[in-house]
Amino acid sequence: MTEAIAFLPPRQAVLSRRAEILDDLKELVPAGRLVEERNALVPFETDGFIAYRRRPLAVVLPETTAQVAAVMKYCHRYGIPVVPRGAGTSLSGGAIPQEDAVVLGLSAMTRIIEVDYANRCATVQAGVTNLAISDAVGADGYFYAPDPSSQLACTIGGNIAMNSGGAHCLKYGVTTNNLLGVKMVLVDGTVVDLGGKHLDAEGYDLLGLVCGSEGQLGIVTEATVRLLAKPEGARPVLFGFDSAEDAGSCVADVIGAGIIPVAIEFMDKPAIEICEAFAKAGYPLDVEALLIVEVEGSEAEMDAMLAAIVEIAKRHGVKIVRESQSANEAALIWKGRKSAFGATGRIADYICMDGTVPLSQLAYVLRKTSEIIDRYGLRVANVFHAGDGNMHPLILYNINDPEDAAKAEAAGMEILKLCVDAGGCLTGEHGVGIEKRDLMLHQFTQVDLDQQMAVRSAFDADWILNPSKVFPLEGRG
Amino acid sequence: MTEAIAFLPPRQAVLSRRAEILDDLKELVPAGRLVEERNALVPFETDGFIAYRRRPLAVVLPETTAQVAAVMKYCHRYGIPVVPRGAGTSLSGGAIPQEDAVVLGLSAMTRIIEVDYANRCATVQAGVTNLAISDAVGADGYFYAPDPSSQLACTIGGNIAMNSGGAHCLKYGVTTNNLLGVKMVLVDGTVVDLGGKHLDAEGYDLLGLVCGSEGQLGIVTEATVRLLAKPEGARPVLFGFDSAEDAGSCVADVIGAGIIPVAIEFMDKPAIEICEAFAKAGYPLDVEALLIVEVEGSEAEMDAMLAAIVEIAKRHGVKIVRESQSANEAALIWKGRKSAFGATGRIADYICMDGTVPLSQLAYVLRKTSEIIDRYGLRVANVFHAGDGNMHPLILYNINDPEDAAKAEAAGMEILKLCVDAGGCLTGEHGVGIEKRDLMLHQFTQVDLDQQMAVRSAFDADWILNPSKVFPLEGRG
Repeated sequence: MTEAIAFLPPRQAVLSRRAEILDDLKELVPAGRLVEERNALVPFETDGFIAYRRRPLAVVLPETTAQVAAVMKYCHRYGIPVVPRGAGTSLSGGAIPQEDAVVLGLSAMTRIIEVDYANRCATVQAGVTNLAISDAVGADGYFYAPDPSSQLACTIGGNIAMNSGGAHCLKYGVTTNNLLGVKMVLVDGTVVDLGGKHLDAEGYDLLGLVCGSEGQLGIVTEATVRLLAKPEGARPVLFGFDSAEDAGSCVADVIGAGIIPVAIEFMDKPAIEICEAFAKAGYPLDVEALLIVEVEGSEAEMDAMLAAIVEIAKRHGVKIVRESQSANEAALIWKGRKSAFGATGRIADYICMDGTVPLSQLAYVLRKTSEIIDRYGLRVANVFHAGDGNMHPLILYNINDPEDAAKAEAAGMEILKLCVDAGGCLTGEHGVGIEKRDLMLHQFTQVDLDQQMAVRSAFDADWILNPSKVFPLEGRG
Repeated sequence: MTEAIAFLPPRQAVLSRRAEILDDLKELVPAGRLVEERNALVPFETDGFIAYRRRPLAVVLPETTAQVAAVMKYCHRYGIPVVPRGAGTSLSGGAIPQEDAVVLGLSAMTRIIEVDYANRCATVQAGVTNLAISDAVGADGYFYAPDPSSQLACTIGGNIAMNSGGAHCLKYGVTTNNLLGVKMVLVDGTVVDLGGKHLDAEGYDLLGLVCGSEGQLGIVTEATVRLLAKPEGARPVLFGFDSAEDAGSCVADVIGAGIIPVAIEFMDKPAIEICEAFAKAGYPLDVEALLIVEVEGSEAEMDAMLAAIVEIAKRHGVKIVRESQSANEAALIWKGRKSAFGATGRIADYICMDGTVPLSQLAYVLRKTSEIIDRYGLRVANVFHAGDGNMHPLILYNINDPEDAAKAEAAGMEILKLCVDAGGCLTGEHGVGIEKRDLMLHQFTQVDLDQQMAVRSAFDADWILNPSKVFPLEGRG
């Protein structure tokens, strides 16, 4: 396809020293932890944003913080770009390398270091998967709240880089609200600890700054995360509507009334059909839009909250209200939703937008999105976290048809601008990566971006950490 | 008293130009908004950390963001230090000026700009008091959650500077968890907007960085905060214990079991006596330690959560469990707790520590605190947010007895170090200010602090914003 998004030109001084650099890196990580063969590098060429790919100089897969520090110290000394990588599930291209970069993969750092129930937290290495944390504490009645759809694969390190969310973040908050501390390697190899098991901390909130900084301020090697007690019970309920706008207005009114269920997920008709075909979840096929609302707590609590939501839904002409009747049915409902991206991938290539809007704008933005998609002659499936206004239009296209791909990308950019213009922002949980980099100036002024870049330079003066990402290439320092 | 904490030496170039600076400032703010008379400056000499005071060069009280920007542009140009000030209720000396500084007071900026129920947020000027936000939306069933004891007086701008907490932050989080956006004037007078009404945002989390940065990164002039729906009901319950350690262990076990009431407040015997004498709240006087546990929700929810807490309290030998029987009784219980500092001030001078510890260390730290106080021959009253481990020993002393004051300060420093050594930190919600500045190296390494200072320099290269605060004077760049 045509590449609308540019990468920084590779540093020739680095490319020309490749053999020497590989020899040096071999000394810094255990045997087998340096990937250098061209074919072995292919899996690291791209991530969940598959439209772009670059082969990296090399990949290192360290096992300890000390090894990460040694690699950083070396790369910093010689001005070699470093692209950190968790499981490579980024939807915005946050882990796509460049030709002069060493990919620093954290996937070998999978140790759960400590589970501390007294302080309700767990300390894990950065390569531990999101779900593995909940699995480690589930039998004791606890869980780790943020739940990206990719939670089976994605790592906590990647979650921190992107400040990842998930369906249940409506109630529990995103990664930054559930992160207590990190161990991080600075660009020059220095190791720092930010945060800890205690509430808050003195000094600037560098932990909050690091969370969501897309691997540009340092390499997180360990994380201390909050554990929550599992709720007494949970019940997903399906609400079917005759129009996407009715569903959107209903969500705005539920939240506006101060009711916070644990999740409110939205699917439009194309998404319902795609997910139902894949998961056999029992979604109704005769509605235009579906909300999956999950309530939790005691039976009495769930009943009371549901009654209030049904009341509001009726005012928006809800057509179907269907409670899951068993744990199995509930699991299927969530399986359908969480496999939406995978199920979509079976029928077409897609790019997933991540714009977030104030809830009062939900219905308007849905209507306008549909107009944009029609104008480009494309198809879209909408499946997203409605409760917090985090939209995910999946724009369907054919990756092997350059014209189709260019249209999909252009439509996506229009949709993101629409979100910003409606008082929202470019990304709720997927990050900027390379995907939304050049739209940053649509949201921010140059003054805003200069300030962000000044902060970046305070951590990484030479901009070797994930350099092609987040900030538009033009207008950089 | 002897001054253990040093201020930066005043910039002579600024002091010698005072008359000229006053003339220039007069042009930048409306008539009457420049305070220059020596006697009129006295109220601005100190804040809630009354042991230290300095008369500022002048005070300006702008009414608009544009005026704040004009003052900052001027002061930046001439290298004049600026100390931002809300209501001056800081307990760590965050608003104490210095002789060469212009105090930039936000107390005239008290406009509630917008209440937006659809998006559950309100936008207010920085000088609006904490309680005024809840008052403005209370009749419609909403409130702003963080509730510092000084909420009647303290401003949202000051809350943001210190990332303030309060009794109900156990459930609702502190300021940073309830702040959606700010308008901020950078050191050179540029105005930026951070965050907004939407969830999260792309780019670095500068909003999170600014929250808690103690006025050193810019002057916040407007804030957009989250509004929450009032709970169906709320019920404070008193739990009396025979020892502080039993109460502390009970708190750790409640939270460890995953039960999160809306508040768990702790009072030891001296605090109970002081507060009861002042508020006539009906606190039991025959116990050594008291927990105020507040539950909220429907009657059924409150009953269920209380039953679980009573079960745990029994394991720790609880002696008295007393539910409030009326709204009036509930109000008195909270009045007693929230006036603890004021009530203490009636019987002695005090300094209030703000160390925060992992909950599992609560009982240990209480015991050690008592040993330290005994060793210095002082008295202490403990009244604090136990649920999140945020301790507030009030060390009683006589401000007019230099030896007593020095002992109180030394004991306070030992207690804070104890908190850090127990895996906690120096401050939960009061900030570093000047009070804890020189202890920062007990918590952080020089590497950690260098990184924080580099971030600060990225915002304020000349360090004119609140310059004597947060970072130890030695070891600065």
